[in-house]
Amino acid sequence: VEELLRSPVRARFALTSPALAASRRGSALLDALHARRVTVHEVSEGEFATAADTDAPQGVLAIGEIPERSLDSVALPPRARLLFLDGIQDPGNAGTLLRTAAAFGVAATVALPGTVDLWNAKVVRSAVGSLFHHPAFSGTWEALDTFRAEHAVAVWGADQGGEPLDAVTDPPERMALVVGNEGSGLSEQARARLERRVAIPIARGVESLNVAVAAGILLYEFRP
Amino acid sequence: VEELLRSPVRARFALTSPALAASRRGSALLDALHARRVTVHEVSEGEFATAADTDAPQGVLAIGEIPERSLDSVALPPRARLLFLDGIQDPGNAGTLLRTAAAFGVAATVALPGTVDLWNAKVVRSAVGSLFHHPAFSGTWEALDTFRAEHAVAVWGADQGGEPLDAVTDPPERMALVVGNEGSGLSEQARARLERRVAIPIARGVESLNVAVAAGILLYEFRP
Repeated sequence: VEELLRSPVRARFALTSPALAASRRGSALLDALHARRVTVHEVSEGEFATAADTDAPQGVLAIGEIPERSLDSVALPPRARLLFLDGIQDPGNAGTLLRTAAAFGVAATVALPGTVDLWNAKVVRSAVGSLFHHPAFSGTWEALDTFRAEHAVAVWGADQGGEPLDAVTDPPERMALVVGNEGSGLSEQARARLERRVAIPIARGVESLNVAVAAGILLYEFRP
Repeated sequence: VEELLRSPVRARFALTSPALAASRRGSALLDALHARRVTVHEVSEGEFATAADTDAPQGVLAIGEIPERSLDSVALPPRARLLFLDGIQDPGNAGTLLRTAAAFGVAATVALPGTVDLWNAKVVRSAVGSLFHHPAFSGTWEALDTFRAEHAVAVWGADQGGEPLDAVTDPPERMALVVGNEGSGLSEQARARLERRVAIPIARGVESLNVAVAAGILLYEFRP
């Protein structure tokens, strides 16, 4: 909620428990909520627990307006990276991917069909605030086709069957990196659009890396 | 369970649901369980659901013997990496760290005080089988002090206040990488032992990377 209030996303309403006001950090947050003219409603600890869906809630829940974002609103510098999520189903992975994309200055993250809703509460929590600042939204393959043609974006994919990463020395000025489903990898729609596929070399006998770890390594290596 | 049967870890007992035998993959797994002389007990779907602690169990649960592992049993090549977990509390992060360490050929992962039990069911699941092959165990700082002195292991830490990773060009032959707690970072015990601290450069305004993503980038960059 602190991150939400520091972001351009509009907070509409907050639910708090009595414990919040007891800590210095909690009471500063309450002040910030009032300063931003957010409607705050305090309920008992018991009622609060029934509204929170975590085991150890921190005494504050907020409702924010999902920002209107699309590819049209993305500002693309001459050297840029984008991240395309192709059927990422685990909300923890999706949130960690958003956090990672924000950390490496990715211009936008696009959730393609089959990917979990980016505003799912577990995704929001795993993204630890990055979703409020980082341009992330859902999109279609067709919209991406138009965008990449207009903006000269090369589409590369993370794929264990691709070229080894340590042999790739010439990343393009503008690249969209596609990462695929946790179990089945890249979709047919992704494969049909890829210019290059890159593999992170891993030890024999190990099946794969976690998708957010793989994306982190590739976004670091290909940082603009 | 397939990974368990392919590993040196001894499987003692398995619980299955009727649905398992209906698929080709499930019936192959049943054959493998019988071939390994594992006691298999089939229960109804309803009973199975009460024993599994996931929302969508896959019809088989197994009990294996936790292997006896310690620093004494680690075979250390001339160039080697180790991973030290310094107060990693989230089981999903711990499992992903083990999976990542196995993927990058880390010689051993040591869970230091304050780290979640590596044989916690959520850690085992997030490690997707790597825990059965990869040498991972809990240890004390004192045992590590003896080990690093005997084996000439340099201890480096991941820390946002450290030297930027892109400026570090001379990793040592044998390195142990310490990664710290998700909220508070490296402990005092870790800091007192570090020879160098390395930071992954991230965008302004972003607090940090997920610990498994950070470890993945560092283990890839410092691959032996």
